Amino acid sequence: MKNLSIKLVSRPIGVPTDVCWLLEENNVSELADNQILVKVQYLSIDPAMRGWMNEGKSYIRPVKIGEVMRALGVGEVIASKNPDFVVGDYVSAAMGVQEWVVMDGKDAVKIDTSTIDAPVYLGTLGMSGLTAYFGILDTGQPKEGETVVVSGAAGAVGSVVGQIAKIKGCRVVGIAGGKEKCDYVVNDLGFDACIDYKDGDLRKNLKEACPEGIDVYFDNVGGEILDTVLGLINFKARIVICGAISQYNATNKIVGPSNYLSLLVNRAKMEGIVVFDNAANYGKAIKEMATWVLQGKLNSKVYVVEGGVRAFPETLLKLFQGENIGKLVLKL
Amino acid sequence: MKNLSIKLVSRPIGVPTDVCWLLEENNVSELADNQILVKVQYLSIDPAMRGWMNEGKSYIRPVKIGEVMRALGVGEVIASKNPDFVVGDYVSAAMGVQEWVVMDGKDAVKIDTSTIDAPVYLGTLGMSGLTAYFGILDTGQPKEGETVVVSGAAGAVGSVVGQIAKIKGCRVVGIAGGKEKCDYVVNDLGFDACIDYKDGDLRKNLKEACPEGIDVYFDNVGGEILDTVLGLINFKARIVICGAISQYNATNKIVGPSNYLSLLVNRAKMEGIVVFDNAANYGKAIKEMATWVLQGKLNSKVYVVEGGVRAFPETLLKLFQGENIGKLVLKL
Repeated sequence: MKNLSIKLVSRPIGVPTDVCWLLEENNVSELADNQILVKVQYLSIDPAMRGWMNEGKSYIRPVKIGEVMRALGVGEVIASKNPDFVVGDYVSAAMGVQEWVVMDGKDAVKIDTSTIDAPVYLGTLGMSGLTAYFGILDTGQPKEGETVVVSGAAGAVGSVVGQIAKIKGCRVVGIAGGKEKCDYVVNDLGFDACIDYKDGDLRKNLKEACPEGIDVYFDNVGGEILDTVLGLINFKARIVICGAISQYNATNKIVGPSNYLSLLVNRAKMEGIVVFDNAANYGKAIKEMATWVLQGKLNSKVYVVEGGVRAFPETLLKLFQGENIGKLVLKL
Repeated sequence: MKNLSIKLVSRPIGVPTDVCWLLEENNVSELADNQILVKVQYLSIDPAMRGWMNEGKSYIRPVKIGEVMRALGVGEVIASKNPDFVVGDYVSAAMGVQEWVVMDGKDAVKIDTSTIDAPVYLGTLGMSGLTAYFGILDTGQPKEGETVVVSGAAGAVGSVVGQIAKIKGCRVVGIAGGKEKCDYVVNDLGFDACIDYKDGDLRKNLKEACPEGIDVYFDNVGGEILDTVLGLINFKARIVICGAISQYNATNKIVGPSNYLSLLVNRAKMEGIVVFDNAANYGKAIKEMATWVLQGKLNSKVYVVEGGVRAFPETLLKLFQGENIGKLVLKL
């Protein structure tokens, strides 16, 4: 059986281009004991992928040159030599950008697709949702009545952050690019307001939307937006640094927040988070979020791109072009 | 009786110049009930003064145009209409840049100069020491065996920070400007090492001095030094933002830390502190630090400049020129 995969063959400078990737066809290997064969159905397309392509120390080892590009996925078990899995089970795992994956059963998690669609396990009930959950609750610590601002509000993480903050009784203001996204954030996700950073004076608009200042800021974008928010934070504000998509393809030096002394003036803190640190509590979090999904409190939009493995390189770029609303997944 | 004072008459752009100040002579006013008359003996010269001269929201209201420049001081009670004070008492208070001050007794704190010199109450046992104490212990939370780095290590705050971290069993590395300061930091204050940021490759030298990385960074300077340290922090590092003396006179935009995403990679946090938030615990802290001073565990060097009120403008500039070693005070 043939397996189409995409390997990383050179590290990008700036935006990843075609020279980074190699499309390859190989035979699917035989199953060893405890292994399962999974037909990959959906791949999670994440801003973090850009970081994984870089060399150097980070929170996870870089993808090696010549290695199949790392990607989380969901798929169906087609053959099993592992007693915990039977043919027809659905699983979630790090599957890589490929059509088939042979893996040890211990690296896969069974998912229940009877009431919740499979791709949601890559979004709200996957890494994006877990990042949002632990980031806003444990680090952001939003209190009822506080004002929470989220950038990348229409994205996979931001959309969940804001909805959880609403569940906790906060005033929630999103920041997103374009009217369509802002309308979605307010109308479909229930944020109190959403500022289009591409339209008008961000500082003025944010200030109006946050008449009592900003207590928690969940940052997915970095750059000027982070700087603007820093100028509007309240005493003892918490800033959660989850990502900086505006800076990931920077070929010059990253722009640091020149307003960082607002942390001093306001005795505020800025803290970085990585979801993997919470692995011990994933189960509890997924259970709570699944309940919210089933109760209709957590909208879990998925932006599905068709096209299979071959479409991966261009699909990844959609993230940096701000095209997707909700979790971006590639259907195989 | 004549009182010489210095008033703020215009707000500086960049480094404060003579046009900011007005030397004035007035009569000392009569004492009302509960007031005391204090002969100011020493004034505390602090980097924070530069911030107080700016307009706009900060952690404390700006000094008004036409107002005597704010300054902490120690002095002797010369007359008292307050039952809690007698002539000859020594007190510490916000006295302003002037020779005499008439103040309500409730705004003054009695100090014991029998075993500890009066100016030490402006340094190690004053705002500088308290800033160090709460900043390093409550926010830095150094654990035995961890590596603590302090910038402005020869300064009033940094010198105390490092010594407290040594008392807590940490490896302590200072950063200071010039060989004389670095020698003082190692030989007189007992730091394990001190890097001269003016000499050689800061990153390389810091890396060598911190073979196990940096767990706590106490920042008094900002700018490139903050950025360099951010590149060397450990998992779950704590960065205490106490000041940014490199940026206080900036006429251009402040330089933000372009390495701030190291917070994300390392799940680290950066938190701003202002000593005033700990007012309820000043007494306990001063008591503990006074014990350390008397036990010889806490060296409390004071850099005394003579010259009285008239010398204030030039004395303030010494801070930004990096001239002083230890707490800078002006003797009246």
